[in-house]
Amino acid sequence: MIERRGVQSSAAAGTLTGIGVGPGDPDLITVKGLEVLQSAEVVFVPVRRQGDQSYALTIAADLIDSTRQQVVTLAFPDAASGSWHPQCSTIVAALAGGLRGVFLTEGDPSLFSTFGHVAATVREIEPALHVDVIPGVSSVTAAAAVAGVPLAVYGERVAIVPAMYRREQLEETLRTFETVVLIKVSGVLHETIALLDRVGRLDGAVYVRRCGRPDQEVVRDVRALAADPRCDYFSLIIVHGVGASA
Amino acid sequence: MIERRGVQSSAAAGTLTGIGVGPGDPDLITVKGLEVLQSAEVVFVPVRRQGDQSYALTIAADLIDSTRQQVVTLAFPDAASGSWHPQCSTIVAALAGGLRGVFLTEGDPSLFSTFGHVAATVREIEPALHVDVIPGVSSVTAAAAVAGVPLAVYGERVAIVPAMYRREQLEETLRTFETVVLIKVSGVLHETIALLDRVGRLDGAVYVRRCGRPDQEVVRDVRALAADPRCDYFSLIIVHGVGASA
Repeated sequence: MIERRGVQSSAAAGTLTGIGVGPGDPDLITVKGLEVLQSAEVVFVPVRRQGDQSYALTIAADLIDSTRQQVVTLAFPDAASGSWHPQCSTIVAALAGGLRGVFLTEGDPSLFSTFGHVAATVREIEPALHVDVIPGVSSVTAAAAVAGVPLAVYGERVAIVPAMYRREQLEETLRTFETVVLIKVSGVLHETIALLDRVGRLDGAVYVRRCGRPDQEVVRDVRALAADPRCDYFSLIIVHGVGASA
Repeated sequence: MIERRGVQSSAAAGTLTGIGVGPGDPDLITVKGLEVLQSAEVVFVPVRRQGDQSYALTIAADLIDSTRQQVVTLAFPDAASGSWHPQCSTIVAALAGGLRGVFLTEGDPSLFSTFGHVAATVREIEPALHVDVIPGVSSVTAAAAVAGVPLAVYGERVAIVPAMYRREQLEETLRTFETVVLIKVSGVLHETIALLDRVGRLDGAVYVRRCGRPDQEVVRDVRALAADPRCDYFSLIIVHGVGASA
């Protein structure tokens, strides 16, 4: 039911499907995502820097048949300013002749993933390439599930904000939204804890790291994190249950 | 890897797992969700009013074996004030003796679902009942996938807000967040379109209704909706691409 735009007419240029493999547990991929992944000839996986291990590939490794499927790792630096044209040209070239490719992202491809820019850029390079998305379970809702806290009920409002940008707006957001999910909290963890304390929302905060992976960690007293700054890119804080005073 | 809290010790009281069946396409259930759904003896599905058809059951109907599994439909009125104690007592009683039950919700159980309250209430009634959640694909990211618009990249901020509550804050949210997802837009559609016009964000708005169902509808010019107010509970508007002027 997810529209596959013109798959029939794409024989020459190929097809690229962004697939969200979910937050960490390989069994949280969707039935459709698994089926399309396993039918692909080429599997693209992103890393931040050449030589890094791909988190999406770590999650999906056992779902891929490397004797039959080609896995291509591509480095996408984090800076929005960087051109991704060379990497996207590699994708277009690899699918020429009408191959079916998939681009794996952890979580969901529409939410803080490289796939949004990749989709736009490959379409620019090769308009005949057919591009679509199969959504996945986001780390935001998966973290809520493992922490046992609902994100929103009834008329509540949810904000999903990177903790390290626009910090001047963060205080206002924490004062006006019932639930705030602070992503990419690594690197600004101590300042973030201090801010939560200042706005009176420390008690409703839960820290979740590497949700669904063997090294998953859930910390309900985030004050405890101040002494133990183990933290990485795949960590977030859910602030729930109070707020919305404005 | 999603923790099943103490399933071993729950023999007498049973187990209740909230499962997000995804936004509409039955193939967007997760592999884990499907497995646990099919291993359940009792399948609870929510409706708004007695006699209504359950949207979650409509999505999952073909995944259930009614010769082997008992399907129990429970009415949960929308008002937060209503007590759900009787319905939750029904759940606890149905699982007594150690049965495995699942509670299906469309989308994800943590995001605007009845399951948050159900989980809290059944735990109150029967603390020995083991309750957990298997997350699902939210209609928010699934709608972004079918509309072909990323919700957020890099440092962008996303707000997910019910369109009909706290409307006095909505204008400020539309002015400060790069992406705003207006859910439950039914009933306030015309006022919402007028507001988007006033804050200059009509051009970045996409309307998605019944994402992934056979009657799915994607409307990229939301002005067109003003003349055709077909709209229901399972509709949302994604406002993306501009904003964040503050």
